[in-house]
Formats: sequence, C-alpha cells, structure tokens
Amino acid sequence: MRPVYLDNNATTRVDPEVVAAMLPFFTDQFGNASSSHAFGSEVAGAVRQARKSLQALLGAAFDHEIVFTSGGTESDNTAILSALETQEGRDEIVTTAVEHPAILTLVEYLRDKRGVTVHLIGVDAAGRLDVDAYKRALGPRTAIASVMWANNETGTLNLIPELAKLAHDAGALFHTDAVQAVGKIAIDLRSAGVDMLSLSGHKLHGPKGIGALYVKKGTPFAPLVRGGPQERRRRGGTENVPAIIGLGKAAELATKHLADEQGRVRALRDRLEQGIVQGVGHCAVLGDPEQRLPNTANIAFQHLEGEPIVMRLNQAGIAASLGSACASGSMEPSHVLRAMNVPPELLRGAVRFSLSRDTTGDDITRVLTVLPDIVGRLRETSPAWLQHHPSNAADALRPTELT
Amino acid sequence: MRPVYLDNNATTRVDPEVVAAMLPFFTDQFGNASSSHAFGSEVAGAVRQARKSLQALLGAAFDHEIVFTSGGTESDNTAILSALETQEGRDEIVTTAVEHPAILTLVEYLRDKRGVTVHLIGVDAAGRLDVDAYKRALGPRTAIASVMWANNETGTLNLIPELAKLAHDAGALFHTDAVQAVGKIAIDLRSAGVDMLSLSGHKLHGPKGIGALYVKKGTPFAPLVRGGPQERRRRGGTENVPAIIGLGKAAELATKHLADEQGRVRALRDRLEQGIVQGVGHCAVLGDPEQRLPNTANIAFQHLEGEPIVMRLNQAGIAASLGSACASGSMEPSHVLRAMNVPPELLRGAVRFSLSRDTTGDDITRVLTVLPDIVGRLRETSPAWLQHHPSNAADALRPTELT
Repeated sequence: MRPVYLDNNATTRVDPEVVAAMLPFFTDQFGNASSSHAFGSEVAGAVRQARKSLQALLGAAFDHEIVFTSGGTESDNTAILSALETQEGRDEIVTTAVEHPAILTLVEYLRDKRGVTVHLIGVDAAGRLDVDAYKRALGPRTAIASVMWANNETGTLNLIPELAKLAHDAGALFHTDAVQAVGKIAIDLRSAGVDMLSLSGHKLHGPKGIGALYVKKGTPFAPLVRGGPQERRRRGGTENVPAIIGLGKAAELATKHLADEQGRVRALRDRLEQGIVQGVGHCAVLGDPEQRLPNTANIAFQHLEGEPIVMRLNQAGIAASLGSACASGSMEPSHVLRAMNVPPELLRGAVRFSLSRDTTGDDITRVLTVLPDIVGRLRETSPAWLQHHPSNAADALRPTELT
Repeated sequence: MRPVYLDNNATTRVDPEVVAAMLPFFTDQFGNASSSHAFGSEVAGAVRQARKSLQALLGAAFDHEIVFTSGGTESDNTAILSALETQEGRDEIVTTAVEHPAILTLVEYLRDKRGVTVHLIGVDAAGRLDVDAYKRALGPRTAIASVMWANNETGTLNLIPELAKLAHDAGALFHTDAVQAVGKIAIDLRSAGVDMLSLSGHKLHGPKGIGALYVKKGTPFAPLVRGGPQERRRRGGTENVPAIIGLGKAAELATKHLADEQGRVRALRDRLEQGIVQGVGHCAVLGDPEQRLPNTANIAFQHLEGEPIVMRLNQAGIAASLGSACASGSMEPSHVLRAMNVPPELLRGAVRFSLSRDTTGDDITRVLTVLPDIVGRLRETSPAWLQHHPSNAADALRPTELT
C-alpha cells in the first residue's frame, strides 16, 4: 500500500519537475557561477532566472532583494544578527514565544551570552499574538521585531502587514520567518511592508540545503557568512547552483499550485479534522480556526500521549508528527502549545497532520479509517483516560464531541 | 569537440555515481532525518553512513567529529568565530596572507569592526609560509592559528602537523582550511594534530552547498548557525540529506581514486607545465616546485595580462582560470601572488590550470596545441612585451626558456 505522508510541515517531497530542472547542473553545466569561462557564465544566467522566479512568488520589487542562503535557519539567524549589528543604539529584540527554534535558540543565546534584551511576546489559546503586548515592547531600543508568518505546529497566521507597520512606527526593522507560509498562502511583499523574510526550499517541494533571505532594498545589512563576493557580498561561498535552480523551479510550481493549496488541500484538511473530531471524539483542533494555513491540522487527544499515536500511525503506513520535527528527541511538551496554555489533559496528546499538493482523498480516508481504532485502544489502557471515564471505559471507543 | 575543463580548483564535475546516490533522497526517501516516522528514520541511517565515509577519508577517530555544514566558507567562519568565543582571554588570530577569502574577509572584518588582533603571516616567493614569523606571532593571547593545507591558486602545501604542534605549544587551537587538499592528497587526522578542519563537497566531485567541519573530540565549540538540535547542536537547520549522501559517496570515491590523483593526474600536470615552459617560453611556474598539489599548475606569462589568455582559451573550448574564481569580477592582481612578491612582469599574467581525475591526455594535448599561438599573438600586440623585446618582436612566437 502506498505510504501516506502527512508531515509536510517537517519536509516535502521534492517535485520531480524540480529534480529534472536540477539534474543538468550536477554533471553537465557544473561550472562555478563566479567563473568567467563558458562553464561559469551559462550557469550564472540560470541562477539569475531562478532569482526572478523567487521574486515573482514573493512579489518582491527587485530580484536582487533575494539572497540565497543554505536554508531557513541560516536566513533567520542572518536577519536577527544583521539588525543588531547595523543599528547603533538599538540592541533589543522583540519576537514571540512560539517562534521556530531557528529564532528562539538564537535569541536565548543572545540574551544569556551577550546581554541582549529579548521580549518574547505571548499568544492566546488559539495561538494569536498578543498585539497589545507586542506594541508595548517596541521602542527606541528595538533593533528588530521578528514574527513568524505562519506557525509550524498549528498553522496559525499572523497579521504581518499590521505588525510590520507597528515595528516601523517604533523605528525598528521587521523580519518574518515565512518558512511555513511561502507556497501555502499568497504573499505580496510590495504591500506587506516587511524588511526581511526567510524561506526554505524543502518546505515547498524544493531541495533541502537551500533557502533565501529577502532583504528589502535599502535595509541595512551585515552578512553572517563572510567570504567571496557572491550574492553582492551578502553571503560568501560558492553558489549552490543545482539547489538554486531547484528552488527557482519550486517557486514557479508553487505559484502555479497556489489555488490548489487554497482549495483542494484546504478541503481535504477540513475533511480530516471534521472526520477525526466526529469519528474519534474527545479531542480538540488547536490553532486559530479562521486564520490558519490551509494544510495544517494539529489535533490534541484528551488524556493520551501523542507519541504512541504517531508510532501506531507509522506502523499503519501513515507519517504524522508529534509537535515539530525540529525538536524531536525531546520529550517535553511543545513550547508552542505551552505558550497557548493548552489544558493539561490535551497538552501531551497533540498530533500534527500537515498536507500538501501530493495529498489525495484516499490518504485522508486511510487516516479516518485507522485512527479511531488506534486512539480507542490506547484509551483502553490509559490510566489518565480511565481515571476520567471510570464508569464507562467502553466510552473510549465511542465517538463523542469534545465539550 | 569535447570542452576541456581545467578549472577544478574552482569547482569539479559531480561524479555520476554521486548523483545516482543522491537521487532517491529527493523524491523517494525524502523524509526529514529528524522525524521519528519511517520516512525520517531510514534517512537518518543513510546520513550516519555518509558521516562514516567522510571519517574514513580523513582518518578521523570518531564519526561524530564530522559536522555537516553548507560548505567550506561556512566551515571556515565557524572555526574562527568558535575559537574566539570559547576561550576567555584569548582574542588574537594567527593566519596567513594567502588564505582563501573565507578566512581573510572574516578576519579583516573582525580586525576592523571588533578590534581583534590579526597576524597575517607572509610567504616566500614559492608561497611557503614564513614559519619563524608564524612562531613569533603565536602567544598566550592566540585563540586560533588557521593555515590552509593547500593554496587554491598555486597548490603550495603547508606542513600542517608541524604548524599545529607550534600552535598547541602556545596553548592555541589549530584550524586548517583543507578545501583544496581533501581528495587530492592523503590526510590522516589521527596524526595531523589539528583541532578543526574545513572541507567542501564540490571540490572533490561532490555536490555544491555541502561541506563539513571536522571538530576533534574535546575541542571547545560554539555554533555559527543556531536552531534545532541537529548535528549534536553544533549546526542548526534541517539536514541537507541528498547532499550529505552525495558528499559521503564523493568521499568514498576520493579514497578510491587517490592513487590516480597522485600518479596519473600529477604526470599530466607535469606534462602540461613542461610543455608550456618549453613550447611557449618566457613564463614561470608559480608555487613550491616540490610541496604542491598534484593537480595544480599556475603559470605566469611575462608582460601579458592573464585575462585575454583565459578568454582566448575559453574561445578554444578550454576552461582555465585567472587567479581564484572566488575573487572574480575584481581586476586586482591576486592577493596570493602579491604576497609571494611575484615580479611585476609576471604578476598580471598568471593563469591557473587545475586538473582532476576527469582530465585526459588529449585535454593536455589540446592546451599545448593552442596555447603557444594564443600567447604569441597577444605578445605581438603587447606594448610591455614589445618594449622589452624591441629588436626582435618575432621572438614573441619563438619558444625560449625563461632565464
């Protein structure tokens, strides 16, 4: 049976068209894009074209606003460190408690080891930013405000143009980690007002090991990786040509498939959520019910651990995820769900299903077929569940709406 | 006619076996190596195997001493910044005037913007390090000494074990940029005594956008890219699985082809050099005649500019390079040749031919067939040449040994 892959927020399958676009650049047009001979110059032209494809996907005003990096984490690190370095007298960071580790690990380090003041703004039960607290944290010392466009665990979307404007009102730069948003929702940088934006190839059916940092023309900038004059001296190192070409093709395809993501994928996700809520019961859909990525369903099962659910789904040929893949290996409940104050009986039982344009109706049917039984059997042996449903252990297998 | 590619120090053709090894990891085994489900775990196993292949190529004691990065530049930057950050009271850097921009651009920035004392040790006319000056520069304030294993422009090799020992005698860490050395000469880290070593995939017939930093067990370390817990928390960001697999395969192949590099490639390089010196005349082979990479020939033509030579070779289907590709776009003479005090009549006329295991005897014959005519015609119209050979302009076309 075809395996069902519902962990697209961790990584996506590279589109075969992307692989086909990359292939000639390994063994045929393999030159260094910075070389002056024919092997180099034909490659440099292809890199230019890829930059333009990314510009189009983002609605950026200029192609040179795109700086290729090794991925989302490098882009995020570069944005934050650049803002601190280039603005004398501004040494504070405003960000959120639910960012990806690419932001949080860095700002915790900057706070603990370099004495940088970091404001971690909280969220409400649906993962929505506390905009008042955000506003209060911004000030004349703020170097940069960094707020993710879409949360990787819940899919909750932030109102980026509004948050960017508030940062600018305080004279600060604004960065958004859009790694989960790009390719899933329409982005128009001409109207968004952000100064820097991070994206990653492998979250949009492009290759791993490549990403970009959008740097709006005129934004003060200091590189993180220093070396040769590549990327207009904003990122040293030989251009990763095949991956850049792949990212360009992925951007083209994302533009083309955006309507599918918004329509068909969203409908599949909704069917999955409704099917689980009705078919399994005693569970809650986490995140903002309205302002949410069309592909993400984060569902918490009462009085259960997510881990054995994910494990049994895996045994049934279904890949889903417990919190974010980036924090795997850790047994702590997700920092995102803790920030949302998810109630204790749900906190450890969250499973993330993330769809993509590869997802089919049959995939969703498979999950809805096996999941009620998996959850039911786990509840039969869960002390926490039995403690709360002592008179009726069989209730574990009976679908009920969460009250 | 098959193009002749003699710019392998800029980048190499990816070995078709490397591409074949990578391919399944784009569209089939495309999981995130950090994911707990089947898509992730099978990938994690392949990454482990690649790390072991690299360990074997380098003769490292442990596979976990290998940290995958996005390439040589990131590895170099990480090593230097880590050494400064982790050793209280040690804030000086000792390095050389002929390093790659991945080191030089960074240390110039650290000197100019962060007040770090940087000792740039000079070289002699053959590009050999001034070991006495190196010794004198080392002291109780030295955080790290960083000396490239092989120079990218001339191929001159440094005596790394000796230099590492001197650094250790001063209590400093020792790093080597071995981007040009790995795969071309035998490396045994168990006996070399280096604390950190940088390498790059695309210089050894592996993919671009991937490299590694060897970090000897026990070496104090601070990451450059901070995010998730990947690479034992030494480098954040989703593992670039296909490229890691490709680098592992490239390491395997490099181990297998090392004898070819030392034997057949060296013989071809020697034939090229002797053929040019005898067939063109008035030129000099730069770099150490003995301690030199087997694949590199840097030849300077008296009273000429390298650029038109490279251009005309290109028109004849031969890719060679003027200085380092990483500094292309700049018209200044190479910092390496200036540090070697190459005489003015040779300084601007240097052309680098860098071979690889893909190079054939026919390739060399092609260069030796077209180059004398290219150089001769350029000399006929070179004011500098004619000024020095006024009585005998036809001398331009007559081969003579450089006196």
